Amino acid sequence: MRQSKVYLTEEDQSLLLHVLFQQKYASEVLACELADIESGLKAADAAHYTRVTDLFHRLRDADQ
Amino acid sequence: MRQSKVYLTEEDQSLLLHVLFQQKYASEVLACELADIESGLKAADAAHYTRVTDLFHRLRDADQ
Repeated sequence: MRQSKVYLTEEDQSLLLHVLFQQKYASEVLACELADIESGLKAADAAHYTRVTDLFHRLRDADQ
Repeated sequence: MRQSKVYLTEEDQSLLLHVLFQQKYASEVLACELADIESGLKAADAAHYTRVTDLFHRLRDADQ
Protein backbone atom coordinates (compact mmCIF):
# COMPACT_ATOMS: atom_id res chain seq x y z
CA MET A 1 0.00 0.00 0.00
CA ARG A 2 1.37 3.46 -0.98
CA GLN A 3 0.27 6.20 1.40
CA SER A 4 1.51 9.74 0.85
CA LYS A 5 5.01 9.22 -0.60
CA VAL A 6 5.88 6.16 1.47
CA TYR A 7 5.37 2.52 0.53
CA LEU A 8 3.99 0.66 3.56
CA THR A 9 4.65 -3.05 3.92
CA GLU A 10 1.99 -5.30 5.49
CA GLU A 11 4.08 -5.15 8.67
CA ASP A 12 4.17 -1.33 8.57
CA GLN A 13 0.39 -1.23 8.15
CA SER A 14 -0.17 -3.65 11.05
CA LEU A 15 2.20 -1.67 13.27
CA LEU A 16 0.47 1.61 12.44
CA LEU A 17 -2.97 0.16 13.14
CA HIS A 18 -1.71 -1.44 16.37
CA VAL A 19 -0.28 1.89 17.58
CA LEU A 20 -3.43 3.74 16.51
CA PHE A 21 -5.52 1.47 18.75
CA GLN A 22 -2.92 1.48 21.54
CA GLN A 23 -3.11 5.28 21.55
CA LYS A 24 -6.93 4.94 21.55
CA TYR A 25 -7.10 7.30 18.57
CA ALA A 26 -8.85 5.09 15.98
CA SER A 27 -12.40 6.39 16.48
CA GLU A 28 -11.02 9.90 17.04
CA VAL A 29 -9.38 10.10 13.62
CA LEU A 30 -12.60 8.87 12.00
CA ALA A 31 -14.53 11.53 13.93
CA CYS A 32 -12.15 14.19 12.57
CA GLU A 33 -12.76 12.94 9.02
CA LEU A 34 -16.54 13.05 9.55
CA ALA A 35 -16.32 16.57 11.01
CA ASP A 36 -14.30 17.78 8.01
CA ILE A 37 -16.83 16.28 5.59
CA GLU A 38 -19.88 17.52 7.50
CA SER A 39 -18.44 21.04 7.82
CA GLY A 40 -17.74 21.19 4.11
CA LEU A 41 -14.02 21.44 4.76
CA LYS A 42 -13.53 18.26 2.78
CA ALA A 43 -15.36 16.90 -0.25
CA ALA A 44 -16.26 13.21 -0.13
CA ASP A 45 -18.68 10.97 -1.96
CA ALA A 46 -21.59 9.38 -0.12
CA ALA A 47 -19.98 5.94 -0.18
CA HIS A 48 -16.86 7.17 1.64
CA TYR A 49 -18.95 9.09 4.16
CA THR A 50 -21.10 6.01 4.80
CA ARG A 51 -18.09 3.70 5.25
CA VAL A 52 -16.40 6.10 7.66
CA THR A 53 -19.65 6.59 9.61
CA ASP A 54 -20.26 2.84 9.89
CA LEU A 55 -16.73 2.06 11.06
CA PHE A 56 -16.80 4.98 13.51
CA HIS A 57 -19.99 3.68 15.14
CA ARG A 58 -18.64 0.12 15.31
CA LEU A 59 -15.46 1.30 17.04
CA ARG A 60 -17.23 3.68 19.38
CA ASP A 61 -19.85 1.10 20.37
CA ALA A 62 -17.09 -1.42 21.07
CA ASP A 63 -15.36 1.03 23.40
CA GLN A 64 -18.46 1.39 25.58
CA MET B 1 -7.28 -8.44 12.39
CA ARG B 2 -8.93 -8.02 15.85
CA GLN B 3 -8.22 -4.65 17.42
CA SER B 4 -9.74 -3.81 20.79
CA LYS B 5 -13.09 -5.63 20.72
CA VAL B 6 -13.81 -5.08 17.02
CA TYR B 7 -12.91 -7.38 14.14
CA LEU B 8 -11.56 -5.28 11.26
CA THR B 9 -11.89 -6.53 7.71
CA GLU B 10 -9.13 -5.79 5.16
CA GLU B 11 -11.41 -3.03 3.86
CA ASP B 12 -11.82 -1.56 7.37
CA GLN B 13 -8.06 -1.56 7.85
CA SER B 14 -7.44 0.12 4.49
CA LEU B 15 -10.10 2.74 5.22
CA LEU B 16 -8.62 3.48 8.65
CA LEU B 17 -5.11 3.83 7.24
CA HIS B 18 -6.40 5.99 4.38
CA VAL B 19 -8.19 8.35 6.80
CA LEU B 20 -5.16 8.40 9.10
CA PHE B 21 -3.02 9.68 6.24
CA GLN B 22 -5.76 11.99 4.93
CA GLN B 23 -5.90 13.57 8.39
CA LYS B 24 -2.08 13.79 8.31
CA TYR B 25 -1.94 12.05 11.69
CA ALA B 26 0.15 8.95 10.87
CA SER B 27 3.52 10.25 12.04
CA GLU B 28 1.83 12.08 14.90
CA VAL B 29 0.35 8.91 16.41
CA LEU B 30 3.76 7.22 16.16
CA ALA B 31 5.34 10.24 17.88
CA CYS B 32 2.81 9.88 20.72
CA GLU B 33 3.73 6.19 21.10
CA LEU B 34 7.44 7.06 21.20
CA ALA B 35 6.84 9.82 23.76
CA ASP B 36 4.89 7.40 25.99
CA ILE B 37 7.67 4.81 25.79
CA GLU B 38 10.50 7.33 26.30
CA SER B 39 8.74 8.93 29.28
CA GLY B 40 8.22 5.54 30.89
CA LEU B 41 4.48 5.92 30.66
CA LYS B 42 4.37 2.79 28.57
CA ALA B 43 6.49 -0.36 28.69
CA ALA B 44 7.70 -1.69 25.36
CA ASP B 45 10.40 -4.05 24.20
CA ALA B 46 13.34 -2.78 22.18
CA ALA B 47 12.04 -4.39 18.98
CA HIS B 48 8.74 -2.51 19.17
CA TYR B 49 10.51 0.76 19.98
CA THR B 50 12.88 0.26 17.02
CA ARG B 51 10.05 -0.55 14.58
CA VAL B 52 8.02 2.48 15.66
CA THR B 53 11.09 4.74 15.47
CA ASP B 54 12.03 3.50 12.00
CA LEU B 55 8.52 3.93 10.61
CA PHE B 56 8.19 7.36 12.24
CA HIS B 57 11.39 8.59 10.56
CA ARG B 58 10.35 7.16 7.18
CA LEU B 59 6.99 8.92 7.35
CA ARG B 60 8.39 12.18 8.65
CA ASP B 61 11.18 12.28 6.05
CA ALA B 62 8.61 11.61 3.30
CA ASP B 63 6.53 14.59 4.47
CA GLN B 64 9.44 16.98 4.08
